[in-house]
Amino acid sequence: MKTACIVGGGVIGGGWAARFLLMGWDVRVFDPDPEAERKISEVLSNARRSLPGLSDQAMPEEGALSFHAELVDAVAGAAWIQESVPERLELKHKVYASLQSVCDEGAVIASSTSGFKPSELQEGALRPGQILVAHPFNPVYLLPLAELVPSDANAPEMIAGAQGILREIGMYPLHVRKEIDAHIADRFLEAVWREALWLVKDGIATTEEIDDAIRYGFGLRWAQMGLFETYRIAGGEAGMKHFMAQFGPALKWPWTKLMDVPEFTDELVDLIAGQSDAQSGHHSIRELERIRDNNLVAMMRALKAQDFGAGAILNKAQAPAPELGDISKPILTISRAIPLDWTDYNGHMNEARYLQAFGDATDRFMEMIGCDAEYIASGGSYFTAETHIRHLDEVHAGARITVETQVILGEGKKMHLFHVMREGDRMLATGEHMLIHVSLETRKASVPAPHIEAKLVEISQAHAGLGLPEGAGAAVGKR
Amino acid sequence: MKTACIVGGGVIGGGWAARFLLMGWDVRVFDPDPEAERKISEVLSNARRSLPGLSDQAMPEEGALSFHAELVDAVAGAAWIQESVPERLELKHKVYASLQSVCDEGAVIASSTSGFKPSELQEGALRPGQILVAHPFNPVYLLPLAELVPSDANAPEMIAGAQGILREIGMYPLHVRKEIDAHIADRFLEAVWREALWLVKDGIATTEEIDDAIRYGFGLRWAQMGLFETYRIAGGEAGMKHFMAQFGPALKWPWTKLMDVPEFTDELVDLIAGQSDAQSGHHSIRELERIRDNNLVAMMRALKAQDFGAGAILNKAQAPAPELGDISKPILTISRAIPLDWTDYNGHMNEARYLQAFGDATDRFMEMIGCDAEYIASGGSYFTAETHIRHLDEVHAGARITVETQVILGEGKKMHLFHVMREGDRMLATGEHMLIHVSLETRKASVPAPHIEAKLVEISQAHAGLGLPEGAGAAVGKR
Repeated sequence: MKTACIVGGGVIGGGWAARFLLMGWDVRVFDPDPEAERKISEVLSNARRSLPGLSDQAMPEEGALSFHAELVDAVAGAAWIQESVPERLELKHKVYASLQSVCDEGAVIASSTSGFKPSELQEGALRPGQILVAHPFNPVYLLPLAELVPSDANAPEMIAGAQGILREIGMYPLHVRKEIDAHIADRFLEAVWREALWLVKDGIATTEEIDDAIRYGFGLRWAQMGLFETYRIAGGEAGMKHFMAQFGPALKWPWTKLMDVPEFTDELVDLIAGQSDAQSGHHSIRELERIRDNNLVAMMRALKAQDFGAGAILNKAQAPAPELGDISKPILTISRAIPLDWTDYNGHMNEARYLQAFGDATDRFMEMIGCDAEYIASGGSYFTAETHIRHLDEVHAGARITVETQVILGEGKKMHLFHVMREGDRMLATGEHMLIHVSLETRKASVPAPHIEAKLVEISQAHAGLGLPEGAGAAVGKR
Repeated sequence: MKTACIVGGGVIGGGWAARFLLMGWDVRVFDPDPEAERKISEVLSNARRSLPGLSDQAMPEEGALSFHAELVDAVAGAAWIQESVPERLELKHKVYASLQSVCDEGAVIASSTSGFKPSELQEGALRPGQILVAHPFNPVYLLPLAELVPSDANAPEMIAGAQGILREIGMYPLHVRKEIDAHIADRFLEAVWREALWLVKDGIATTEEIDDAIRYGFGLRWAQMGLFETYRIAGGEAGMKHFMAQFGPALKWPWTKLMDVPEFTDELVDLIAGQSDAQSGHHSIRELERIRDNNLVAMMRALKAQDFGAGAILNKAQAPAPELGDISKPILTISRAIPLDWTDYNGHMNEARYLQAFGDATDRFMEMIGCDAEYIASGGSYFTAETHIRHLDEVHAGARITVETQVILGEGKKMHLFHVMREGDRMLATGEHMLIHVSLETRKASVPAPHIEAKLVEISQAHAGLGLPEGAGAAVGKR
């Protein structure tokens, strides 16, 4: 069993504890704060609800979590010791001295420091080569980045071992090859923070306007590609040098209050263009554009389902759903285009997305008969009990589809629907579904509100004349 | 019919053209570049594959696109005129003079400028109040942000009208209340760019390392919440003031090369804390943490499906899938936890995700019999023809589920599978599926490679002794 020691709880230490634990390590915590146990248990409950489902494979069994009043007990057997105490150098030095007097010489002592260089941390240490920086990002249990910053005092094998452990717990160890104050990522955070303080102070923008300026625009770009790959695309076919020629002069302009700029020489342009080629040159600009667009669509649709950020903007801008029209015919419940993220390795819409479209059609039909968000909030809903899909034809991203819905039976607790999905006149699939009305309190079958049952019965009777659609009542493999 | 005029094609002008067109506007382009038509058609083809599916409702019919050699023809009937010519003030002034001599007085003339203030653009204009800044972000057809920057010369009704049109085409108009060089977002981009140039120049990091430092960490945070809401969470229960007290001193430290910092006064702290309360105070820190985690999980899983960025890290870190073991029993094909993004407004796993899990089980079984990525790349695969699901019980985020797979029939082109999903011993659902082997070239049924058919027959024969599972062969609503 692998063991990690967490020195200093709080949000960051707790995040490390959660990640190690959920990855199957035993975790031993040392923190004199009487609140430490409560704080870590709160981080842990956040981690338990979010981390395990990230993977498509089961994670190992959780390790054991224990709290220790003595450092010597907390470090017992620990292969990794993570220090996340407040950012005061003399405090950190004291902690390392205590740790090195009791811990295994082969253990990694990693600091969560945002700012100190490893050589500063190592000053005066018994074994400087045992200490380095592993700087994580909150929430530590979800975000993969850990900046791993060694100094010349750390042996290559020690660094490689630390990288291996970080990878083992699902992180991406970014080896910072040359130590510097605040490492890499926090230098950007600090630059943006400084500019943001100016904007608020000068009354240009509020905190909310600044957040919106980030999350509805470049934030989405940076979440997938970062700065340089994004700009490589902006340079277009003319390339990275063209991009830099265009924006180089801006360095002299007051586009930020932060004017301590490097000299924009040909050498610097060549250096960047060459690094960008090494990074992204295996893709054409056209390919990079499509990768970026696939990522943006997938992320924006993910946020749409959460109704947050750019996804909330999409929901607000969305055209109204079809209205319940003539009920003597099957009812138009879905009219939409196939999004990029609904297709799979076969290049066509994935089988599960057929059910997603049919589920959306069912949701829309429920709204039409009065089983809307307000009704659901009052404690009633329909749950799907049974589904039969005939996948009749393929369909690709961008295609416009419709779903029309026929009520086969609607009475009492039961709602039996038959959906037909088409692209133009081409039939793509049928979906037959038995739904049961439930009480969301008891989670058991219950009768719907009278106005819902009345509407359902009305449509059901109007649809009775349509007859049973072709394919209804079928079982898999039987014609 | 609404009409937009695009002055200056290229990536930005083309992006505006695509957004207007796909939102149902007619678009008239003026650009003397002989390549303009080709460039815009390339942007348009990217937009057509990605934008329509973002929404869950069909978009209007595309407008008509036309190219014009004379400005007077291009502006005919245009309610919106978007200028995206190169960033040279005297050129922009010339363009506005030409435009205002021929365009409708009520039309909006909006500039895509990244840097110029509207008052600079308006200098010397015939009707200064007709001109403002609408600064978009690439790709313009996907990202919702447009910084709308007026000057005192613009009437409130004109600004409101411009906001209305931007909303109508699915954008988020961020009203920049006080004009400033580079508006808001590009000031951050410029600050980060300046810091990035230092890091590359000083040999601290390569362009790729910088991109990784962004996209595996804070980029994901900023894509959904931006800077201040993220830091509000970091401050924890102690609040925004606590956060600032902690990081205020860093303004004096060399955490970036950009040292032109504002004075960190109590007034500034109060201003920021108050604005943050107004922005996010309706949520507790605990709620904000969960919103953030929901968003991060949804976006990271979206990137996982694209195998890019943080999603590629997840795929690399993932534990191996179950191996084909004892074939005399149903085969373990899925063992995983339910992710946060698989649940819906009922608080349980959405019906479509049952099919996603069964689809994953089928994919895994296909790999086990040799129908893996390499085989699929060679031109053969199985397509699902028919599906029957019994949703027997609810399951919630975080629960560990398994799927076991029984082969009911496997011979020739046919593969008839029966999946059982459980949480521990509790049966959640069954999925019965008929799959047909196809040639990916002809998209028609074909026989599988001999090694695949042989493996399938072997398992099918081993499973024959298990008998037909309960629930197999059923039709919806029939017991």
